[in-house]
Amino acid sequence: MAGSSIKPTPLLKDELDIVIPDGFDYELYNRNDINRILGPKASCISFKDSACRCFGYMVSKKKYIYTIDDDCFVAKDPSGKEINALEQHIKNLLSPSTPLFFNTLYDPYREGADFVRGYPFSLREGVPTAVSHGLWLNIPDYDAPTQLVKPLERNTRYVDAVLTIPKGTLFPMCGMNLAFNRELIGPAMYFGLMGDGQPVGRYDDMWAGWCMKVICDHMGWGVKTGLPYIWHSKASNPFVNLKKEYNGIFWQEEIIPFFQSSVLPKECTTVQKCYIELAKQVKEKLGKIDPYFIKLADAMVTWIEAWDELNSSEGKPAKLLNGTA
Amino acid sequence: MAGSSIKPTPLLKDELDIVIPDGFDYELYNRNDINRILGPKASCISFKDSACRCFGYMVSKKKYIYTIDDDCFVAKDPSGKEINALEQHIKNLLSPSTPLFFNTLYDPYREGADFVRGYPFSLREGVPTAVSHGLWLNIPDYDAPTQLVKPLERNTRYVDAVLTIPKGTLFPMCGMNLAFNRELIGPAMYFGLMGDGQPVGRYDDMWAGWCMKVICDHMGWGVKTGLPYIWHSKASNPFVNLKKEYNGIFWQEEIIPFFQSSVLPKECTTVQKCYIELAKQVKEKLGKIDPYFIKLADAMVTWIEAWDELNSSEGKPAKLLNGTA
Repeated sequence: MAGSSIKPTPLLKDELDIVIPDGFDYELYNRNDINRILGPKASCISFKDSACRCFGYMVSKKKYIYTIDDDCFVAKDPSGKEINALEQHIKNLLSPSTPLFFNTLYDPYREGADFVRGYPFSLREGVPTAVSHGLWLNIPDYDAPTQLVKPLERNTRYVDAVLTIPKGTLFPMCGMNLAFNRELIGPAMYFGLMGDGQPVGRYDDMWAGWCMKVICDHMGWGVKTGLPYIWHSKASNPFVNLKKEYNGIFWQEEIIPFFQSSVLPKECTTVQKCYIELAKQVKEKLGKIDPYFIKLADAMVTWIEAWDELNSSEGKPAKLLNGTA
Repeated sequence: MAGSSIKPTPLLKDELDIVIPDGFDYELYNRNDINRILGPKASCISFKDSACRCFGYMVSKKKYIYTIDDDCFVAKDPSGKEINALEQHIKNLLSPSTPLFFNTLYDPYREGADFVRGYPFSLREGVPTAVSHGLWLNIPDYDAPTQLVKPLERNTRYVDAVLTIPKGTLFPMCGMNLAFNRELIGPAMYFGLMGDGQPVGRYDDMWAGWCMKVICDHMGWGVKTGLPYIWHSKASNPFVNLKKEYNGIFWQEEIIPFFQSSVLPKECTTVQKCYIELAKQVKEKLGKIDPYFIKLADAMVTWIEAWDELNSSEGKPAKLLNGTA
């Protein structure tokens, strides 16, 4: 059930023991496996960057994916109890979302809550939930400029809420503590071209979040944010981050209005069709900003081709490398 | 600073002492005063219904209005500390809103919080806040059917968050614990025709909320919900409520899509112009549901005429009846 974000280093198996709780298994892939499985289409998977985690989403055969960064640990709620993040994510994904009208008491399906006066009855069944975006205590997920300005800021506020992000509203999706229904939205969870050889980093999850939200809005699915919290232990280096981010900080001022105004035609009846259409719009409208977006749009198409190849009814990828616990 | 929701009964002054904290004063108006001040335009103010409170918004000369129901009291936060609801509302109104992009750590202007990675820098100044919608512990604000089904449900969850309701998203605005900037949005805070002689009740605040939100979205202002909580002590009678609500429950299924799709032309540069335009659209589009909406649309126009008459640069209403504390 867990998507792997482990960096494929040749020496990894010699340096690391992974202790796996009952009920979980894992497969470990390195860059050679990615190249062997995807062939020339491996070009769509980022090199030496956490964005490569989306390869795990592609080869997974599970219904739900949970992805978590390697500097994230179990957090405690205000009563001191350890939070079972996975359990909360699954609760979020299994209960409906309410993107069409805002409920002021937050998640209406939660015990002790409901829809408030004035909430239309026709909308109370909700819609399927595609994504559960969890938050972080301790080190907040700030950009490099904010890290530099507020090096000591820690998030200590536990907000006991899960809420649906309304239809038509975009948000900054962080990949640190994220779960999704792979069967619904998997093909939209492409983390782009980042890191080695690319002009930008740290926008992998943002890119997936923008694309995913536009597609969920079009398909009539929900995206939740809030609980569960994880404990984010380590602030990354703001100087390194700034170098990765500076183009993204500049470009997002145009990218976000682009996604806010993007309309998918009603012929787009699958996530794959939506994504190919988005790739076309990216090339047309964002290609002017920088040639990078032409390359990214092509990689988006390659990603979908690879996804469909690996996830066709027959073609299940052979297990090429099994790690041992 | 406080808007009055006291029902005008002739014997009130004999039966009630109002203890007023330092720094507050009050004026008490009854139906005769409303009739005398507004003349024939008094027809837009509801009879024997809490919706009449909007007359107080009209005659107030203060910048901020706080309106609270008479069964609401001071609540405590999880640490046991009494909540200063007015202080939190004023904080909400004095700090900007962020309706154009969702911040996953909630209010970015709050101490210990900020905008997260991926939040566009061009939007970090925010926009002026027009409305602060507070919540309720203990008795939740449920409609009659939910009250009947869940008579014992109490809201015990303290969610430590204030958030901006995104642009384009409607919500059920409850008048129980509500503050707003009268100079910005006052003329949109009309509570409609409810109660005595009308086919519907308990939709006064909802009506104001729908109109207000459409206008705030058009004008580029923000609406916040969340903190502060008040303690709501008394569940109203669900059978009486059902009688008041049943038309509203039915009608809201058409009213909400109407407001969701309503577009205000760019000529609407003031709240008054927006409101007159909305009245026109109500008459055209909702008039088909029931003749009540024709009457309501006319009352909306009357309300604006009365507002402008009382709030013109010269015409300040004389104090007609002062209560004594």
